[in-house]
Amino acid sequence: MSEPLVRRLAIIGVGLIGGSLARALRVAGGVGEIVGCGRDEGQLVRAVELGIIDRYSTDPAEAVGGADGVVIGTPVGAMESILEAIRPHLADGAIITDVGSTKGSVVAAAHRVFGSRCPPGFVPGHPIAGTERNGVEASFAELFQRRRVILTPLPESDAGATAAVRAMWEKTGAVVETMTPQHHDEVFAATSHLPHLLAYSLVNTLATLDEKVEIFRYAAGGFRDFTRIASSNPRMWHDISLANRDALLKVMDRFEGDLHQMRQAIEAGDGDYLLEVFTRAKEARDCFVDKAEE
Amino acid sequence: MSEPLVRRLAIIGVGLIGGSLARALRVAGGVGEIVGCGRDEGQLVRAVELGIIDRYSTDPAEAVGGADGVVIGTPVGAMESILEAIRPHLADGAIITDVGSTKGSVVAAAHRVFGSRCPPGFVPGHPIAGTERNGVEASFAELFQRRRVILTPLPESDAGATAAVRAMWEKTGAVVETMTPQHHDEVFAATSHLPHLLAYSLVNTLATLDEKVEIFRYAAGGFRDFTRIASSNPRMWHDISLANRDALLKVMDRFEGDLHQMRQAIEAGDGDYLLEVFTRAKEARDCFVDKAEE
Ligand SMILES: NC(=O)c1ccc[n+]([C@@H]2O[C@H](COP(=O)([O-])OP(=O)(O)OC[C@H]3O[C@@H](n4cnc5c(N)ncnc54)[C@H](OP(=O)(O)O)[C@@H]3O)[C@@H](O)[C@H]2O)c1
Ligand SMILES: NC(=O)c1ccc[n+]([C@@H]2O[C@H](COP(=O)([O-])OP(=O)(O)OC[C@H]3O[C@@H](n4cnc5c(N)ncnc54)[C@H](OP(=O)(O)O)[C@@H]3O)[C@@H](O)[C@H]2O)c1
Repeated sequence: MSEPLVRRLAIIGVGLIGGSLARALRVAGGVGEIVGCGRDEGQLVRAVELGIIDRYSTDPAEAVGGADGVVIGTPVGAMESILEAIRPHLADGAIITDVGSTKGSVVAAAHRVFGSRCPPGFVPGHPIAGTERNGVEASFAELFQRRRVILTPLPESDAGATAAVRAMWEKTGAVVETMTPQHHDEVFAATSHLPHLLAYSLVNTLATLDEKVEIFRYAAGGFRDFTRIASSNPRMWHDISLANRDALLKVMDRFEGDLHQMRQAIEAGDGDYLLEVFTRAKEARDCFVDKAEE
Repeated sequence: MSEPLVRRLAIIGVGLIGGSLARALRVAGGVGEIVGCGRDEGQLVRAVELGIIDRYSTDPAEAVGGADGVVIGTPVGAMESILEAIRPHLADGAIITDVGSTKGSVVAAAHRVFGSRCPPGFVPGHPIAGTERNGVEASFAELFQRRRVILTPLPESDAGATAAVRAMWEKTGAVVETMTPQHHDEVFAATSHLPHLLAYSLVNTLATLDEKVEIFRYAAGGFRDFTRIASSNPRMWHDISLANRDALLKVMDRFEGDLHQMRQAIEAGDGDYLLEVFTRAKEARDCFVDKAEE
């Protein structure tokens, strides 16, 4: 038998993403032992029962003991305190990555914890895959198949560490790419974070209208798809909104300006403007979907 | 054999909705002859080949000759000129309805054409069913099954005519309800028209960013669902946006205010506000979806 990619993998935060990663690596045979960590012991017991992890600790410092691989799978707001807690207990040469939806904030947190140079084994990452469901029960081994994973290695990251994190994700069936944390945050502010905020904001607006109950009664298929992402975990999106503040404000301001222009065109009865915008949007969307082979 | 509900049905606009209605009535056996009408003769020939209509005319006046039922299935902006064209040719006692997504504008157009009292057989309607695809090729008989159809009868509408339009839609498997045109327009401005404008506006904003190609490259599943409605027919949404101007502006102003408050909370780092809004939206959405049995 060949050596596993990772002999002992500690996953801190065995939820949808952390649990799915563990399951996928089990199936692919890429890992020796998996140690889970979280705050709710009941969830960890369940993860052992489901065969997702081998054992667990509710103490991150203990969980990373002797691990050659560490994955942080918590909401991004919790990552600084976890890095702080595990720092003195990390094995020499351990590879450390995360799955957070923002990258600049995770790198900034790591610099506050480790100083100006992070450990060479530290390679932040973000799998572009998920559902609106949360927790270990919602996890499944196929989540990452043919999905992208973005790695944002730091200047001080070891090339071997980046290759190891890449190899781990490729085992799950994902396609790995790299970019800078800043670029990552700008791209995902536009394609993921802003749409989530719009969906939350729309449902919130409708939920506070007088005719609330009626409004939802007549909401049809398009509305259901459009607002699906508003069923996502509020705590996770709270963390993301605060963590990616600058890139988000930039694209929100742009969007608010464009939306207001559309509003003005409706008020002025400017049909040419509306037709032009709708047509450009439809073409861009159809073209994107063709490429993504919906 | 019992009498068909409608002996001769004229459908002006044999597209997704008009074509699906014709197919559904064929399957249910509720109609004698179906006469189609549109501008593009090729589409009408295709509709005959597909067995959706029996014959056609490109002249609305000719199409409604001798018809005891007339359905207008065009974009709402075309309805006034169609009503004008068919007015002198309508059979006595004919039942006239439409499928437009706005109702106040259709009623106003009818009043301009017919004067202060519309014919007693005129009962405007709106099936709450559709897809982003258009044209007769996209039509299918099951489109209206278990979907709502809203009728907005006028004070002068004959009760028998309303019952006949209801019976026609019930044949397709739809659930029929009635409300006033104004109330209809307020409800659908919120649940349908605003979401479509947001989806168009978001894709338009992203399509005009410098990193456009890259942005779409990294757009994942949530984005795909969220923007599906931006693939809808631009002409149809142009018509709807202009036709439902007042109700749309009202709900857009409310939304813009709420979104800007969210933006301010992000800038100020007000996590409590964000968590409250996201949580309220998730609860409202999950509750609505439970009820709608997604
Ligand atoms: N869901 C998505 O669509 C998606 C996609 C890509 C990336 N992400 C990122 O993936 C990460 C996890 O998201 P998820 O969807 O997997 O959420 P999840 O299902 O709620 O899982 C989060 C896990 O983290 C644990 N946790 C939370 N705070 C912790 C702390 N302070 N210490 C230790 N464990 C803690 C939770 O367990 P306890 O509550 O028991 O501690 C839970 O098991 C987030 O950073 C998110 O941005 C999510
Ligand atoms: N799609 C939806 O999701 C949905 C849902 C509910 C209600 N509606 C409403 O249903 C109506 C039709 O929408 P649809 O989705 O069925 O659109 P569609 O597939 O494009 O069909 C519209 C039909 O109207 C014909 N038409 C357009 N202008 C005409 C004119 N001036 N005279 C005669 N025929 C004309 C078109 O054929 P030619 O181009 O050959 O004339 C086409 O066959 C709209 O009022 C819309 O608001 C749509």
